[in-house]
Amino acid sequence: MKGNTGAAATAPPGGRVLALCGGIGGAKLVLGLDAVLGAGRLTVIVNTGDDFEHLGLHVAPDLDTVLYTLAGLSDPVRGWGRVDESWNFMTALRELGGEAWFALGDRDLAVHIERTRRLRGGETLTSIVADMARRLKVEARIAPMTDDRVRTIVHTPDGPMPFQHYFVKHACTPAVTSISFAGAAEARPSPVFPGAVADPSLLAIVICPSNPYLSVDPILAVPGVREALEHATVPVIAVSPIIGGKAVKGPTAKIMKELGVAATSAAIAEHYHGLIDGLLIDAADAAEANLVDIRVATAPTTLMKSIDDKCKLARIVLDFAGQLANEREPA
Amino acid sequence: MKGNTGAAATAPPGGRVLALCGGIGGAKLVLGLDAVLGAGRLTVIVNTGDDFEHLGLHVAPDLDTVLYTLAGLSDPVRGWGRVDESWNFMTALRELGGEAWFALGDRDLAVHIERTRRLRGGETLTSIVADMARRLKVEARIAPMTDDRVRTIVHTPDGPMPFQHYFVKHACTPAVTSISFAGAAEARPSPVFPGAVADPSLLAIVICPSNPYLSVDPILAVPGVREALEHATVPVIAVSPIIGGKAVKGPTAKIMKELGVAATSAAIAEHYHGLIDGLLIDAADAAEANLVDIRVATAPTTLMKSIDDKCKLARIVLDFAGQLANEREPA
Repeated sequence: MKGNTGAAATAPPGGRVLALCGGIGGAKLVLGLDAVLGAGRLTVIVNTGDDFEHLGLHVAPDLDTVLYTLAGLSDPVRGWGRVDESWNFMTALRELGGEAWFALGDRDLAVHIERTRRLRGGETLTSIVADMARRLKVEARIAPMTDDRVRTIVHTPDGPMPFQHYFVKHACTPAVTSISFAGAAEARPSPVFPGAVADPSLLAIVICPSNPYLSVDPILAVPGVREALEHATVPVIAVSPIIGGKAVKGPTAKIMKELGVAATSAAIAEHYHGLIDGLLIDAADAAEANLVDIRVATAPTTLMKSIDDKCKLARIVLDFAGQLANEREPA
Repeated sequence: MKGNTGAAATAPPGGRVLALCGGIGGAKLVLGLDAVLGAGRLTVIVNTGDDFEHLGLHVAPDLDTVLYTLAGLSDPVRGWGRVDESWNFMTALRELGGEAWFALGDRDLAVHIERTRRLRGGETLTSIVADMARRLKVEARIAPMTDDRVRTIVHTPDGPMPFQHYFVKHACTPAVTSISFAGAAEARPSPVFPGAVADPSLLAIVICPSNPYLSVDPILAVPGVREALEHATVPVIAVSPIIGGKAVKGPTAKIMKELGVAATSAAIAEHYHGLIDGLLIDAADAAEANLVDIRVATAPTTLMKSIDDKCKLARIVLDFAGQLANEREPA
């Protein structure tokens, strides 16, 4: 939302929210938003830059994390994959000398095999994800950022590597010199995206506390997404993934430093400059609020351990959005 | 072996045996032969007419049954698939609305996924099976009947159906009017086959007690295989899959009746007429020996429940082969 368009008023009870999301951290807020909003008021556009072909299967880690989280099937300890998972496939694969660096659980395999089969049959990822979500009783709408092939490439002193090689095979150890999104320039957003942005009942667009460089930037790299956010008539709010100079999980802080950026919420605001109307930060970083030229709200904590934490943070996000929308209301 | 070629003498201790095999019943004898012969003296050519693409995976039921049996990994109760198998993939697949009529165990999936990946990468089935057998510490040589695509089609009053649809999806209930092997005319035997037949240390060729129509005929339909057996210089022996007018397992007897053939060991001899030198039958069918114009031996039982049963029957097969070879020795 740029400027005071006056289009958004006090959040109507039936309004919808659009979230942009990567994997684990983002999915936590998505779960809170879905719980707080209630049935079918949330649309989640998920990063697919991390997708890759592995063992002949189309693996979509972020989509699955969001799907499993909203379906109540995600593993609460590991953070990724399915709860009550078994690993007999992996054991047998190792015996056969197969590539075992990327763990695929027995239950999880069903999603990869079905998705791959249906993609080969000509269905779009958007349609497959929607159907799987429906079958798993998810009421939120989950969509990939695109049905086209976009691949996040992490550039390092050892050369470029596909995202999962950097993230899993090399456990994020190589220094990141830059990140690119192969295929993004030719990609089109999932058909779910324009409809969700143009929905007259839309209340807010939320950029989840995912890794801005690895999880959100690929979504923004799909032509039309950044522009849609810039021209949105509702508040666009990001939740900072940084708490006290550190990321809750994953390589966000490490990458920021390697890219020559301070691992601060102020730097997150700068990264999303021109795109967001407000940034929600952790109280630990309250001092940074003055360093930022957009509206900042602070949450007592942005750490989401319990479902209660997730709902609390979701309510703060929605209140912040409502506040920003009200402020721009014509007098 | 046709006529007295004099090429085979008393079985030397180091000689090899070539077996043609389908699934469960045949694999039992294969296990016995491998145990009795000792390390690396057995070559098994396995039916692949039952292979099919399922969920985007290349599934090869008979090859896997032989592989798992010789690797000590087969389930002793179910007869197919792997011991200590889990079924979490299938449960999850059902939740997603996937095709669940063909059960794929979690451990079993590793073989299907690896095989499919390697086939797509351009490897031959022969090479993949050999490598998997080596990794699973199988000393016998296992090879598919062909690296080309041959598909057994079961013709029924309801129309033609791929083998697994007949066998698993329709549980062998439709009446069989005929059976054909699509692609067989253009197929070439696995490169393992001519080498095994021409091996100067070959002692015997054994047609295992598999379904002649569904499991052995596809192998014989590959151009060059039938001819090689007809011209073999060693005894060719079949073990009848019929005991007292019934098959131990599976639809053999039912199919024979539907095809207008009596479900007897004599009919099995007739089926393999011109191809085999001897038929080994169960003592229960001893009365049929006189109805057959080839040499018949009877085993106290051809039922193989324990490993001991399998070894006993294997010894009878090898003794029978040795006897036939000796008889044709120049005086």
